[in-house]
Amino acid sequence: MQTMQMENITQHDVADLGLAEAGRKRINWAAREMPVLKLIEDRFREEKPLQNILIAACLHVTTETARLVEVLQTAGATIRLCASNPLSTQDDVAAALVQHGIAVFAKRGEDPQAYHLHLHKAADIMPAVTLDDGADLIAMLHRERTDLLPLVLGGTEETTTGVMRLRAMAKNGVLRYPVIAVNDAMTKHLFDNRYGTGQSTIDGLLRATNVLIAGKVFVVAGYGWCSRGIAMRAKGEGANVVVTEINPLRALEAAMDGYRVMPMNEAAKIGDIFVTATGDINVIDRPHFERMKDDAILANSGHFNVEIDVQSLSEMSCNIAHPRPHVTTFTMDDGRKLQLLAEGRLVNLSAAEGHPSAVMDMSFANQALCVEYIVAQSRLHRLPDRIHRVPVAIDEQVAKVKLEAMSLKIDTLTEQQQQYQSAWETGT
Amino acid sequence: MQTMQMENITQHDVADLGLAEAGRKRINWAAREMPVLKLIEDRFREEKPLQNILIAACLHVTTETARLVEVLQTAGATIRLCASNPLSTQDDVAAALVQHGIAVFAKRGEDPQAYHLHLHKAADIMPAVTLDDGADLIAMLHRERTDLLPLVLGGTEETTTGVMRLRAMAKNGVLRYPVIAVNDAMTKHLFDNRYGTGQSTIDGLLRATNVLIAGKVFVVAGYGWCSRGIAMRAKGEGANVVVTEINPLRALEAAMDGYRVMPMNEAAKIGDIFVTATGDINVIDRPHFERMKDDAILANSGHFNVEIDVQSLSEMSCNIAHPRPHVTTFTMDDGRKLQLLAEGRLVNLSAAEGHPSAVMDMSFANQALCVEYIVAQSRLHRLPDRIHRVPVAIDEQVAKVKLEAMSLKIDTLTEQQQQYQSAWETGT
Amino acid sequence: MQTMQMENITQHDVADLGLAEAGRKRINWAAREMPVLKLIEDRFREEKPLQNILIAACLHVTTETARLVEVLQTAGATIRLCASNPLSTQDDVAAALVQHGIAVFAKRGEDPQAYHLHLHKAADIMPAVTLDDGADLIAMLHRERTDLLPLVLGGTEETTTGVMRLRAMAKNGVLRYPVIAVNDAMTKHLFDNRYGTGQSTIDGLLRATNVLIAGKVFVVAGYGWCSRGIAMRAKGEGANVVVTEINPLRALEAAMDGYRVMPMNEAAKIGDIFVTATGDINVIDRPHFERMKDDAILANSGHFNVEIDVQSLSEMSCNIAHPRPHVTTFTMDDGRKLQLLAEGRLVNLSAAEGHPSAVMDMSFANQALCVEYIVAQSRLHRLPDRIHRVPVAIDEQVAKVKLEAMSLKIDTLTEQQQQYQSAWETGT
Amino acid sequence: MQTMQMENITQHDVADLGLAEAGRKRINWAAREMPVLKLIEDRFREEKPLQNILIAACLHVTTETARLVEVLQTAGATIRLCASNPLSTQDDVAAALVQHGIAVFAKRGEDPQAYHLHLHKAADIMPAVTLDDGADLIAMLHRERTDLLPLVLGGTEETTTGVMRLRAMAKNGVLRYPVIAVNDAMTKHLFDNRYGTGQSTIDGLLRATNVLIAGKVFVVAGYGWCSRGIAMRAKGEGANVVVTEINPLRALEAAMDGYRVMPMNEAAKIGDIFVTATGDINVIDRPHFERMKDDAILANSGHFNVEIDVQSLSEMSCNIAHPRPHVTTFTMDDGRKLQLLAEGRLVNLSAAEGHPSAVMDMSFANQALCVEYIVAQSRLHRLPDRIHRVPVAIDEQVAKVKLEAMSLKIDTLTEQQQQYQSAWETGT
Repeated sequence: MQTMQMENITQHDVADLGLAEAGRKRINWAAREMPVLKLIEDRFREEKPLQNILIAACLHVTTETARLVEVLQTAGATIRLCASNPLSTQDDVAAALVQHGIAVFAKRGEDPQAYHLHLHKAADIMPAVTLDDGADLIAMLHRERTDLLPLVLGGTEETTTGVMRLRAMAKNGVLRYPVIAVNDAMTKHLFDNRYGTGQSTIDGLLRATNVLIAGKVFVVAGYGWCSRGIAMRAKGEGANVVVTEINPLRALEAAMDGYRVMPMNEAAKIGDIFVTATGDINVIDRPHFERMKDDAILANSGHFNVEIDVQSLSEMSCNIAHPRPHVTTFTMDDGRKLQLLAEGRLVNLSAAEGHPSAVMDMSFANQALCVEYIVAQSRLHRLPDRIHRVPVAIDEQVAKVKLEAMSLKIDTLTEQQQQYQSAWETGT
Repeated sequence: MQTMQMENITQHDVADLGLAEAGRKRINWAAREMPVLKLIEDRFREEKPLQNILIAACLHVTTETARLVEVLQTAGATIRLCASNPLSTQDDVAAALVQHGIAVFAKRGEDPQAYHLHLHKAADIMPAVTLDDGADLIAMLHRERTDLLPLVLGGTEETTTGVMRLRAMAKNGVLRYPVIAVNDAMTKHLFDNRYGTGQSTIDGLLRATNVLIAGKVFVVAGYGWCSRGIAMRAKGEGANVVVTEINPLRALEAAMDGYRVMPMNEAAKIGDIFVTATGDINVIDRPHFERMKDDAILANSGHFNVEIDVQSLSEMSCNIAHPRPHVTTFTMDDGRKLQLLAEGRLVNLSAAEGHPSAVMDMSFANQALCVEYIVAQSRLHRLPDRIHRVPVAIDEQVAKVKLEAMSLKIDTLTEQQQQYQSAWETGT
Repeated sequence: MQTMQMENITQHDVADLGLAEAGRKRINWAAREMPVLKLIEDRFREEKPLQNILIAACLHVTTETARLVEVLQTAGATIRLCASNPLSTQDDVAAALVQHGIAVFAKRGEDPQAYHLHLHKAADIMPAVTLDDGADLIAMLHRERTDLLPLVLGGTEETTTGVMRLRAMAKNGVLRYPVIAVNDAMTKHLFDNRYGTGQSTIDGLLRATNVLIAGKVFVVAGYGWCSRGIAMRAKGEGANVVVTEINPLRALEAAMDGYRVMPMNEAAKIGDIFVTATGDINVIDRPHFERMKDDAILANSGHFNVEIDVQSLSEMSCNIAHPRPHVTTFTMDDGRKLQLLAEGRLVNLSAAEGHPSAVMDMSFANQALCVEYIVAQSRLHRLPDRIHRVPVAIDEQVAKVKLEAMSLKIDTLTEQQQQYQSAWETGT
Repeated sequence: MQTMQMENITQHDVADLGLAEAGRKRINWAAREMPVLKLIEDRFREEKPLQNILIAACLHVTTETARLVEVLQTAGATIRLCASNPLSTQDDVAAALVQHGIAVFAKRGEDPQAYHLHLHKAADIMPAVTLDDGADLIAMLHRERTDLLPLVLGGTEETTTGVMRLRAMAKNGVLRYPVIAVNDAMTKHLFDNRYGTGQSTIDGLLRATNVLIAGKVFVVAGYGWCSRGIAMRAKGEGANVVVTEINPLRALEAAMDGYRVMPMNEAAKIGDIFVTATGDINVIDRPHFERMKDDAILANSGHFNVEIDVQSLSEMSCNIAHPRPHVTTFTMDDGRKLQLLAEGRLVNLSAAEGHPSAVMDMSFANQALCVEYIVAQSRLHRLPDRIHRVPVAIDEQVAKVKLEAMSLKIDTLTEQQQQYQSAWETGT
């Protein structure tokens, strides 16, 4: 009865341990598409680079995250995991992880109090390393558990949103331990943010609504890596895509890529579907709701549920209904209906299954290697208290292993070519 | 207690009447995107063109079909509905229709016996008009209920597969009532088959597997309207698409559209994902399974589950497992695993929700108007016993109304332009 | 000095025989991409199916046309060739053909009188077969040379525009010999009109203007095979494409393909570049010119130079200049400048080199085989005086040979698959 | 007779001053699409920031370059211009510039001696600022005119290739004046390299060959900004694109973008068209030529003509012919023909007109502002002798002005949004 024992000794707060087997099956399915993490796990099993390291992880509790924490466990670490979003937890995965001996504190749909309590539960492990996806754990530690800060060797952050938040902390001089911006690795944001968010956002949208995308005016707020992934895939489904931006350079790129570019005030009047992925607040707001067409669909793929001003939407509505799972219909006084998906939370994680494993493989390979790096560096001297880039060697290693896993071969520079690159005399 | 009464008087065999409310909600959701059918319903309510007409319908029991049969009922018809595929029935919709007074005989996952029995239950209404999606009802009537054939004024057929089958019947001289090939309407196959099957096949594939499509070698069998829709959307998701064909003209088009074209024997060796949509049998067969890569994914979007030779696949396997809903893993003797989706049945209807309502709106508007046409014509003289085209006037009417519903305005020919088109004297 | 002799005996009116060698080089270059016509030539050389047949051809005098008339000559025919557009003649090709013993009457930039005279020169051969590209020769024969009509066994027509014109003749009951609508062959219009016109129109536009297409609002008038080819390629260059149509079905397709659809009156206000390919008159007209932005670019890819109302444009202008070859700048009274390309004539033939040889290979293979068919049929009994379709066998043969030439292999139906397609009993 | 006077006083070595009027017309045409540079010119006319500054510019002598040097002249500078490639000079532009009072030393097709001499002629002005496109002028000064180096306040470099070369110089410690890497400005490489090279490379390819791109296997060497622009446009024309790379990260991106990725050795066997844009030497080499299909087309879009090993190609050939302008046919001993475009030099500049003005507008706006910056900075203190980035303020200014010129409006952050971005406390 090893399993029962496990449950006895592993602390947890999950929805239903009975879902463990279903979760395990799905984790195994995800593992198929995560060869890079698998290779790292094989090495970690030999080398045990995280022996006796305590880790607190605040991540979306998904099948891919399960693989990451298992790999860290294989390396010798002890881990506590809480959710980085109250709606994104996959309860079967949470159960399977508990059964695997990992302390999980996460229930899908938990209320803000439970969410907050679970952050503390994770922190109670007194971590040497933290993993974040949106910086909620780091922020909480800096606000409410400052006693623990000196123990932390370093942290990692997965998202654009979290990195923006941490840069604000660093700029304000309050950041008290080093953090590696995993998001900024090339093998992370170029793939996860673009191809991952792109595909999974459309996926969430379709699971939630089953609407035909071809022929729709599809408004994407932002033209960063996530939002250009969304725009690219919406175009790939036959949508007529409109982009809104605040950055002139990105706006120009969007225009040159063939999209219409206009302010949200204009886009609001013509859009059939709106998706936000900007990392900022109230990107779709009261004045926009006022101009929208009847039956417009609103979704968010940014990390926090602040991009669509749901509060204003509620106040403007005389009726609120739930016609389908993940859809809330707000009826305005003038009779127009606006269809909000996933309550304005991450539509790809709420209504679908989040990013495909194949991209999370690369993002989490970076995570695993960065945790190893933080620990290894600290044995020499603690990294300075600021935002650090992912070491280039890690980035390149991830790319190489991924290519091999896809059976893709590429060229290498000949000696003559290397020499040419370092010469300057030869010209026309 | 009108509802209870309904249940008392409406014959049915559905999974659970308790699902009726959920089904009704979903039907209402679909109705949002079906403005053409709505306009037809409004007219039918006034004119009652199908007063006292008995109809047997063998269609996928989905929210969109619900709208069609409700519209026919509004027109004065009495309808019996059975499923056109054992796996595609949405049980909540079936329940909602029963509550709406329509006799439904369909349960998701019913066995072949039950499926067959339900065809007979539908036939028992002694129909004046039949509606088919794959020609199972017509074929059964011609085989087993020939006594009913003289009563039938005409039928309609929705799919490419069904039309192929009916042409075979007509060619063999056994077709005993007229059938309108709704599939061949421009406003049907150009939209439903291409944009509908395209989007929903990718949707089914993602719901079943959540794999990343970008970077995958995606093999599409066929380059007809359905399969080119699938190829287009797979490309839109970043796949590297390979097309197989038996028709040289279509093969050339696929090549000129930028896809690789090769025989299935070659494609089998390199594909990560395979989707069939040809209307023919054993398109992926034993020799192909033998060459496939480990972990290849196989799905079908053609009407019948004959395109992938599941029988051979089973025989070649030493183990069969079910890692996720809609996924069956066949392990070969050499250790390779092949992942079959939805048991080789229509992946878009089995693993997702079938075509988006917006395209079914056009297909079913054609259906409703063709049923009206059959009945109206028969009052003058019965149509000849052959395959008929959808009248051009119906096709054009559907297109015009759809454009209006999308708020799209187009040009009209000026008098001068009309004149120019009918003149031949003016040249260079 | 056989060449000199040739010049002595071959009647002609071309610009400069000294260009013959340059023309021959370019014809050879085109021949590289015309393997289907080459195979037909090899057979014709053996079989001489057109022995002693007199042919009058009114075609764009390009390298590809050169190949066609040489193939007909190889088959035993005697040919006279005149231009089907005063601006499209390639003078070096005309010279090379004369040197090859073919009577050519065509000079680039010839005036209407010369153009008309050349039609008569071609007719003077007293043709048994005519070849047309726009139906100018057929129309002239029916108007001015009715004495010759009884001699004609049949004709062929290459373009959508010409077929429209001939249908008008047939409808008006004035068509006096049979014509095969080569344009309607699948291997013609699906390839030549779409991929050929698409690529070469963009090519003509760039050679004439060198403007960046990415980010431009690119208005395409029409969504037939030519215009959808143009739209597809404009999108492929990064344009934001707007489509105008008069046909609701095509308008719907354009919308579902992700383009904006609107009337020309609206499009006129926002377009940076306009291209017409409708086959109708005054598609861009005075009211549109009045609304256009400063510096808008106007081009036509339809057969006749009637689609843009150049007459009105001239009348509205206070100044007309020629800043670059193929560009005319019309300055309006309000200071706006409109840039007209190639005087409103076919921009792909005037400013670039017309369709790539690879698509003309298929179109002209159809032409060659249709001429053979007309002659062979007439030996049995003259075809009826109406528009005929290209025989399916010819269409399929062209596709097969082209695939082989591209080294592309496809599948063939197994016996079981053929049987399945002709069976109707098997269903779910 | 001011023009004659000009000719008397302006030193020059150009092909034919009689072409000046034609060149002026084309310069004016380009100016239409260069609104950013126009605005800068207006300010420079007022402020004269380059009064009495001597400039040597080694740039492709095109209409866009003409605008740049005219703007610098307007700012008060005196300029000498030589070509940065012997084949890219537009002789009419060179003539027009001389007439405008600018000393030009450049003739299309000049031999290496003349090219080299012209570099010296430009250097003879004893420049305070140098402009380079490929670093030939800087390299020559550092090799042969070291006496002039102390006079130079700074230089600018336009291309990826040139920047690579300068980094090699800096790394080797031989760079003796500061250089701004204009190429690395976002508003330069994201637009010029991607959209500019993409469109103009296809343009050059079509003008040189007129081949159909749809259906061709199109091999692009590299997946940097230039080469991904080429791949994108080749795909947009219907090609089946294959990418070769030496960088694993870029190779992964190419794969995820749907292209096939393989080593050149494999690609060589299947390609119909090859284009190089890597900045390195012998990217297509003898072993590749040996494997290529008959009639393969080879072109280069990288700065120097070293990417295709033309020397080896010549040695392997038994016959060399010139079937069309810009095409050289190499016949191998085994009978295969390889078609080399533009002698392996920049195909977009040699066979077409180089980048469209609209992108050069942004690149050259950066150039003009960087020259102003170098001069202004030097009045305070000379910039250090290394490679400098374009100041962010310049980059942003260019983007903003370009957006305005395109009449595109974008959003601005609200106060609340700015505050949110700088806060870290708020989370889930």
